[in-house]
Amino acid sequence: MKLYDGGRAPNPRRVRVFLAEKGIEVPLVPVDMGALGHKAPEVEALNPLMRLPVLVLDDGTVLTESVAICRYFEELHPEPALFGTGALGRARVEMWQRRMEFHLMMPVAQAFRHIHPAMKEWEVPQIAEWGEANKPKALEFLAIFDRELGSRSFVAGDEFSIADITGMIAIDFMKPARLAVPEECTNVLRWYEAVKARPSAEA
Amino acid sequence: MKLYDGGRAPNPRRVRVFLAEKGIEVPLVPVDMGALGHKAPEVEALNPLMRLPVLVLDDGTVLTESVAICRYFEELHPEPALFGTGALGRARVEMWQRRMEFHLMMPVAQAFRHIHPAMKEWEVPQIAEWGEANKPKALEFLAIFDRELGSRSFVAGDEFSIADITGMIAIDFMKPARLAVPEECTNVLRWYEAVKARPSAEA
Repeated sequence: MKLYDGGRAPNPRRVRVFLAEKGIEVPLVPVDMGALGHKAPEVEALNPLMRLPVLVLDDGTVLTESVAICRYFEELHPEPALFGTGALGRARVEMWQRRMEFHLMMPVAQAFRHIHPAMKEWEVPQIAEWGEANKPKALEFLAIFDRELGSRSFVAGDEFSIADITGMIAIDFMKPARLAVPEECTNVLRWYEAVKARPSAEA
Repeated sequence: MKLYDGGRAPNPRRVRVFLAEKGIEVPLVPVDMGALGHKAPEVEALNPLMRLPVLVLDDGTVLTESVAICRYFEELHPEPALFGTGALGRARVEMWQRRMEFHLMMPVAQAFRHIHPAMKEWEVPQIAEWGEANKPKALEFLAIFDRELGSRSFVAGDEFSIADITGMIAIDFMKPARLAVPEECTNVLRWYEAVKARPSAEA
């Protein structure tokens, strides 16, 4: 088994943090995304969408999409449960995982990709107006998220889950997108500090 | 239990088709999204993100996000399995479900929301350039999807899954987005005809 890894980019990092929380070690194949290594023929042959990470099993089976790779490991190593437990618990993690993706990670990514000069060759055409339109989307979601977090420790409840990983990485991604968590979002800031203090955050 | 439903919109329909495939009946609360009923206080109190569908359990617990609602029913009624079986099967459904969402449903939705005159009050600001930029993304993905579908019956393998539901609804959504599946995508057209012929497609 080997994991084609993309370094600092958010999606590869989601899988590394997930594996660190599970205590699973998988051999990494580093790919230099800064040099567009994810568009090289070796990666394209594995994933025609030319995105990372990519997991290759010993029999050659290929899995792409960060959350699908994480779910594969969750099925093989159910403890600690990072996709929730029980019907309602699993549904709630899925709900919050998706809210973190669609209402935080995605607007932050769009702001970064459509505004940052380093993304000019990545996002064609770069449309600054669309990047700017995403900034308030992220901030409006943070206000809602802050109210929800007032009554619990983690994103989807009282247990750490993959939704916390996605959320933490989305917040980290705000910096290069030139966004910041508003000071009044005290619950978000408290939660972020707690998840950043976990050893997995270094992965 | 009741399901706040949004009629013809893609996400509410995903859940209805899923329930039809499972043979589960849930009482629906119709919401007129055309009249912005999803932004009414009753819906906002359940889902501060003001999106549909919303599932309310008998004890008042609220679940939002189509795929989270579907997963809840999958956990309660595992047969027929629509999220895959076994570690690899489940990961593969997740991978294709996400590919369908991020590389087909989402670009089609962006093209629709940023170009269609009826969406002017829904997507503010409407940025036609961004809508247009999404059209080739959807078509490029269809070419890749067509090659993959050459070797199997359904999106994620030889069994029907939630990834087929997402894919079918994304293709249906191409019409109001003024997009069409290219004639040369014969595998996509064959697969689409097969999933549209299932009774669940009417849900």
